[in-house]
Amino acid sequence: MKNFILKGDICFSNDKNIINTAENSYAICVDSVCKGVFSDIPQEYCNLPVLDYTDKLIIPGLTDLHLHAPQFSFCGLSMDLELLEWLNKNTFIEESKYSDSGYARKAYSIFADALKNSATTRACIFATIHLEATKLLMDLMENTGLVTYIGKVNMDRNSPDILIESSAQKSASDTEKWLIDTVNKYQNTKPIITPRFIPSCSDELMECLGELAKSFNIPAQSHLSENKDEIEWVKELCPDCTSYGNAYEKFGLFGNNTKTVMAHCVHSSDNEIELMKKNGVFIAHCPKSNTNLSSGIAPIRKYLDNNMKLGLGSDVAGGETLSMFSSIAETIKVSKLYFRLIDSSAQPLTFENAFYLATKGGGEFFGKVGSFDKGYEFDAVVIDDSVLPHPQKLSVKERLERAIYQNADLMGLKAKFVRGQKTI
Amino acid sequence: MKNFILKGDICFSNDKNIINTAENSYAICVDSVCKGVFSDIPQEYCNLPVLDYTDKLIIPGLTDLHLHAPQFSFCGLSMDLELLEWLNKNTFIEESKYSDSGYARKAYSIFADALKNSATTRACIFATIHLEATKLLMDLMENTGLVTYIGKVNMDRNSPDILIESSAQKSASDTEKWLIDTVNKYQNTKPIITPRFIPSCSDELMECLGELAKSFNIPAQSHLSENKDEIEWVKELCPDCTSYGNAYEKFGLFGNNTKTVMAHCVHSSDNEIELMKKNGVFIAHCPKSNTNLSSGIAPIRKYLDNNMKLGLGSDVAGGETLSMFSSIAETIKVSKLYFRLIDSSAQPLTFENAFYLATKGGGEFFGKVGSFDKGYEFDAVVIDDSVLPHPQKLSVKERLERAIYQNADLMGLKAKFVRGQKTI
Repeated sequence: MKNFILKGDICFSNDKNIINTAENSYAICVDSVCKGVFSDIPQEYCNLPVLDYTDKLIIPGLTDLHLHAPQFSFCGLSMDLELLEWLNKNTFIEESKYSDSGYARKAYSIFADALKNSATTRACIFATIHLEATKLLMDLMENTGLVTYIGKVNMDRNSPDILIESSAQKSASDTEKWLIDTVNKYQNTKPIITPRFIPSCSDELMECLGELAKSFNIPAQSHLSENKDEIEWVKELCPDCTSYGNAYEKFGLFGNNTKTVMAHCVHSSDNEIELMKKNGVFIAHCPKSNTNLSSGIAPIRKYLDNNMKLGLGSDVAGGETLSMFSSIAETIKVSKLYFRLIDSSAQPLTFENAFYLATKGGGEFFGKVGSFDKGYEFDAVVIDDSVLPHPQKLSVKERLERAIYQNADLMGLKAKFVRGQKTI
Repeated sequence: MKNFILKGDICFSNDKNIINTAENSYAICVDSVCKGVFSDIPQEYCNLPVLDYTDKLIIPGLTDLHLHAPQFSFCGLSMDLELLEWLNKNTFIEESKYSDSGYARKAYSIFADALKNSATTRACIFATIHLEATKLLMDLMENTGLVTYIGKVNMDRNSPDILIESSAQKSASDTEKWLIDTVNKYQNTKPIITPRFIPSCSDELMECLGELAKSFNIPAQSHLSENKDEIEWVKELCPDCTSYGNAYEKFGLFGNNTKTVMAHCVHSSDNEIELMKKNGVFIAHCPKSNTNLSSGIAPIRKYLDNNMKLGLGSDVAGGETLSMFSSIAETIKVSKLYFRLIDSSAQPLTFENAFYLATKGGGEFFGKVGSFDKGYEFDAVVIDDSVLPHPQKLSVKERLERAIYQNADLMGLKAKFVRGQKTI
């Protein structure tokens, strides 16, 4: 069923400063596309079935622009280290287990089930370097009904023996095989070029990855300027680059013709910011992770005011949960600490700003996604906020704000639709 | 039933740096007091009934050292303001509604039910200035089985017409009436002297409150050095005081013979810190609130290393939820931002540190509370962390850390015991 009407209290972003609300109204889905939100059902749609979610909140599906599927197993564990040590002592050891397809099946099944049962409808996901495990993850994610990009990770240098590809050629040929197998295999699941980060990918490998992105016409994802030690390391590795971002750009993996999302951008230089803006690179802001790994706070107000392409990421397992509701709340919270502790001219983000980033802002990476404006792909989440009783009258927007700050995605998620398909 | 044994995977703090864990073990409650944790049931207790929570986590009850019951209704709403504006535009208007006993009953019933169904077993709670509503809150809280201090708030100056007591005498006499009515009325619920904060209490009123605390032999709670504008205001109001804390101390409401808990201490001067230490004043660290109201980050590592009396508060509704699990996680998170952004010599708090603060640290305000060491009052919470499946083997402590970071109190709370009474 891809033609139907949702009835309930509907909220969605118009732009980064405005949340539209429509109480007791109708969102109309025809051929997986939204025809708009109406207070009465227009005549032309009056024969469509109505799914009645009266008194419940209906919001666009949320986009998670950055997360690591193999790290889901250690969400909320062992975060007493900063990035580079955390990678070596925790992350790489866990990711190495995915050479075992049995372990991968067990772990990825848990992950796929959890993401399916969250408020997320779209995601950009890192797998590991392992070909078979990555294909398995794609099979599992396809079954969830969510729309995702999934990347086999590339790592051919500066990585431990347990988690490294034997050469640039081997990494590139594995990636090519994987692309041939998967690029047209699924309806909702697509491959994305995924160099882990500059320190773990040789120039030779990066060159191959840039060519693969171009020849298969697929997007790219990676990490950028997350931690100061990491940035110093990249400077040593790439003395000729004008910025960390430029180290991706010189291989064609930084926007322009290759749609690209870069996670973090906590310590991006003005030069790097300019380059992202020019090339239309998406930024995945990951406040939970940036706090947990003591990376700092990204200058998100600057990016927002500069009209950069911008969304939110859970960055599991630097982030402690998959919840995009908590990513919204944390985005606001860390922007307040940025204002208080770093730059008092950077006004904290409003609730409207942060909700926009988790819906329409990040959704743009997937096309017309993240809104109930006419013509958007129909992704919707239904939240029963009666799990949070209150004595006073509240507006629909107040109920939404309260539901997001109070984790109603964990307790009150009632239904989810992705491209017009009911997934839960 | 106050004599029983809990069986499960038990975790509790020994001191601020160590979490004891005992897999598949027994915590023994006799006459509401813990007799210790054992891997086998000692002979002398072998006739006690065993409540079997095999494979579940059993932890001490959590203490919330600071929260506002009347603000629960607007948790997660309207936090785009800093403290003094937030009080005037949101808080005081909502609190004024509690002059209406009907509204108070409706709202406080929702609050009491939510706190009962949380992992909190002990709390220091602000009510409002209203006598009847405060007594109603005490009745409702007594029914939950939780052990709480509840304060009728005092405000006789610098407050809006809708929320002010007509004179110092009226405020003091209402408080005295309330104390006479409630000081011996309940088993688990006790009154606590509660000047809102220095700006809203005249010297004359503070003098009366100091005398009431002494004559009724009851503790005190208030706010301290939360926000820089507030501190400046106190300086103007109390030009002779050596610190904000001293403005309480001169009326006998700052530790020593009057057990006292002060919320926040984000911007305490060295002089004020010294005074708190000398007088044994408890600090209620409220990271969620201090972030939401852009107050800043309290120097919690300094307080911990200085062996000050210290626990955590949700500070609802500056804090967005009642969850003490999220208060633990936020304590660690903001300590990392403090380390990164303010003082790189202040090591971030460990998980052990923060768990200690929410259990044994804050519990000390209530006596021997917050641990399963022998002789402690028996408060326990049972968490079913199977709601968070994982592929790998985890230790009990890892499961605890994961459960706390991932909100298992919202999804997996299975049972709660307070002073040996099962409350849920």
